Amino acid sequence: MNNSLSVKHLLGIKQLTSEDIQLIFHHAEKFKKVINQPIKKVPSLRDITIANLFFENSTRTKLSFELAEKRLSADIINFSASGSSVKKGETLIDTVNNILSMKIDMVVMRHSSPGAPHFLKENTDTVIVNAGDGTHEHPTQGLLDSFSIREKLGDLKGKKIAIVGDIKHSRVALSNIFCLLKQGAEVKVCGPATLIPKHIEELGVTVEYDLVKAVQWADAVNMLRIQLERQADSELEVANFPSLREYSKLYQLNNEVLIKAKRTPLILHPGPINRGVEITSELADSEKSVILEQVENGVAIRMAVIYLLASHIKR
Amino acid sequence: MNNSLSVKHLLGIKQLTSEDIQLIFHHAEKFKKVINQPIKKVPSLRDITIANLFFENSTRTKLSFELAEKRLSADIINFSASGSSVKKGETLIDTVNNILSMKIDMVVMRHSSPGAPHFLKENTDTVIVNAGDGTHEHPTQGLLDSFSIREKLGDLKGKKIAIVGDIKHSRVALSNIFCLLKQGAEVKVCGPATLIPKHIEELGVTVEYDLVKAVQWADAVNMLRIQLERQADSELEVANFPSLREYSKLYQLNNEVLIKAKRTPLILHPGPINRGVEITSELADSEKSVILEQVENGVAIRMAVIYLLASHIKR
Amino acid sequence: MNNSLSVKHLLGIKQLTSEDIQLIFHHAEKFKKVINQPIKKVPSLRDITIANLFFENSTRTKLSFELAEKRLSADIINFSASGSSVKKGETLIDTVNNILSMKIDMVVMRHSSPGAPHFLKENTDTVIVNAGDGTHEHPTQGLLDSFSIREKLGDLKGKKIAIVGDIKHSRVALSNIFCLLKQGAEVKVCGPATLIPKHIEELGVTVEYDLVKAVQWADAVNMLRIQLERQADSELEVANFPSLREYSKLYQLNNEVLIKAKRTPLILHPGPINRGVEITSELADSEKSVILEQVENGVAIRMAVIYLLASHIKR
Repeated sequence: MNNSLSVKHLLGIKQLTSEDIQLIFHHAEKFKKVINQPIKKVPSLRDITIANLFFENSTRTKLSFELAEKRLSADIINFSASGSSVKKGETLIDTVNNILSMKIDMVVMRHSSPGAPHFLKENTDTVIVNAGDGTHEHPTQGLLDSFSIREKLGDLKGKKIAIVGDIKHSRVALSNIFCLLKQGAEVKVCGPATLIPKHIEELGVTVEYDLVKAVQWADAVNMLRIQLERQADSELEVANFPSLREYSKLYQLNNEVLIKAKRTPLILHPGPINRGVEITSELADSEKSVILEQVENGVAIRMAVIYLLASHIKR
Repeated sequence: MNNSLSVKHLLGIKQLTSEDIQLIFHHAEKFKKVINQPIKKVPSLRDITIANLFFENSTRTKLSFELAEKRLSADIINFSASGSSVKKGETLIDTVNNILSMKIDMVVMRHSSPGAPHFLKENTDTVIVNAGDGTHEHPTQGLLDSFSIREKLGDLKGKKIAIVGDIKHSRVALSNIFCLLKQGAEVKVCGPATLIPKHIEELGVTVEYDLVKAVQWADAVNMLRIQLERQADSELEVANFPSLREYSKLYQLNNEVLIKAKRTPLILHPGPINRGVEITSELADSEKSVILEQVENGVAIRMAVIYLLASHIKR
Repeated sequence: MNNSLSVKHLLGIKQLTSEDIQLIFHHAEKFKKVINQPIKKVPSLRDITIANLFFENSTRTKLSFELAEKRLSADIINFSASGSSVKKGETLIDTVNNILSMKIDMVVMRHSSPGAPHFLKENTDTVIVNAGDGTHEHPTQGLLDSFSIREKLGDLKGKKIAIVGDIKHSRVALSNIFCLLKQGAEVKVCGPATLIPKHIEELGVTVEYDLVKAVQWADAVNMLRIQLERQADSELEVANFPSLREYSKLYQLNNEVLIKAKRTPLILHPGPINRGVEITSELADSEKSVILEQVENGVAIRMAVIYLLASHIKR
């Protein structure tokens, strides 16, 4: 195993090699042990300052990154778009360059524009971790989802994973697809036709419109969140669904579906859950669900990513 | 004196024994010395992570808890409702469980629903400190008020304390009543009839509608804040007060009242003060006022509570 | 050189002696080395707690102060006006006194009212650093601007500095004027007549309405930000400018101006930049621009100020 990543930034899973992914998992396993010890901290990044630049609202991802940074003993400054120079008409590059002039070593960035982290990489001189860019990628989520499946089912080679929901608008879906395929898994996407991008098969996945059949096939299902706050009913109407209730009727993971499929795969959900919409409470809280383990693994994965990228920082 | 509390959480004063209260005061005295030293920190909770979950706006209580946690060297993550998953329709339990999956040892929670901390205790596996739940309890405020009176007047047994204002909607009043009675004090509540709950005498307090008489009787008066931002004039109208001015005329603590009562008791106020409404500036800033000492004692009390509850955490 | 400042607070440059300014620069040079080392922290203020009270929005100044405090190992609590007791009708003194009762050693304050920090100094017992008070002063900005010029051009005695833009509403301009004059520099202010205060010459500066002539004269130009969000077009209209475009035509620093002036002075801007308004991108990013160095120097200057003022704190 290599000792360092092939990349200097984590912009997306697309740029990672399968060796990179294995290296991140290897370190995440060690860090997971650390955060389950009484003293949950390591002094590794005592000399590193990280800026968390969240230009888009987030709770769990931001907390998870913050905790990962604290566990690594990094110094942290937090920046959110509200009340910032961004509102004063400053350009993204100016905002970031100003922050970097304050001697920041690494930037964790969430932004609503796909490609914003890539744009920054080209125009600034810092280490960048993409914490979600628009509908593009959310690489640490992709990594933690694979890591969580791997913990329960072992090596992903040949495993069958179904991703269910709004594939079209989901950065989680895309990062999961890249991450799973690079590990040799088989991936099926499932959802209403209008929420599945055309030509998605070219990425190397198969498409299934029937949830029961997808579940029947899968070792694990990753139930995406219906983004109620973004889509409202407008998108669902386009999808020929008269209502959210109609969506749930066809694509909700519930006991009835499992009975019809005669199979109970491992259940993932990136959160936050809309209980009773894409999944029932019963299944979200069931023994087959690894939803809370995903959250725990998120901190370990982010520690691993930050730790590995920090080795590129001159010290 | 016992070495540990009889409870694993601080949900309310109601659940504490008088021995618990004495134990908290004993430690608060020690911590008050610490925060008045040049080095105001102790390394006690170096291995503990505390999440401050404020689902309701707060400044002073949040800052006070944060400082208490920093003085104890705990790691802290802050969460406030704005910009959170709560807005995305996530349930309270999901939000908290997700945060706990990140290996959080203790949750300090403020919530607008009475009983929210109790509900969490039943449904999650963490140590909970109630930082105010709706109109129910605000236990650390009750403790710091008693602690502040005790510092000036000694043992509370037999002391006479009047609580003045909107008793009906005040979590501060309820926590004070429980805390004072458990220490053997006599408690009188005073305010307009419509702002005093029916049957409150069953808690063991007496009721007085005349502020002068209450002051005449009291060793200490605790002047509650009129919650202008919550009540506006609507509640006061119900109380048969045509205006805030009318309320002040009858229930404001001022020199005229002290002269009529021929007595100047110790003066407390939980803050923030509406100067010229429930109390005059003259009295708020007078020698008999312990309002700023209350704030200082708040940090010491919160350090004591967190320190004592942390002993239940596996380490 | 003295070992301590002649003042106990940094309310404005006006109160500083030229020896104070030299002492701050001396320490800023040392701290600039510190923040360019791998380990960017010094343990100097391990026993000090600083409250950042920002009653007005700010990104870069707040981040810069926070970083300076972290580099000095101080404990920090952050307070911003939104969601605070300020909204509940509490007075400024009450808010601050309450925070101080929590044993805070130093307050860094930004406020929209000119004189707010002075008012606090008179009424509370803490060390105060003014981080900008209305249109009055922004002393750390004045210091860092002078420090940045001095790095490139050497001792400021006899140097010629032009300050360009809305002089009337700018706290940056006033702090710069005081700071530059105390070091023996010559200062010219330049802008439309209606944005230059009457009688400003009495401060010891000269006025120039023609940007080309100002540039021709200057060793360095400090281009102030047009505060679009505050002024909108209303103020510019008063200034007999039909539009922002008209303003830019006359007072934008661009290549055409430099060519006409036959001189390229050092270029400063306090940020955030309105690219294409008061300065072109080409010049903002040119070799003569020290805009990003200003940001870096800001952290060093703030470390120096806080470090020197902390020596007044009883420990």
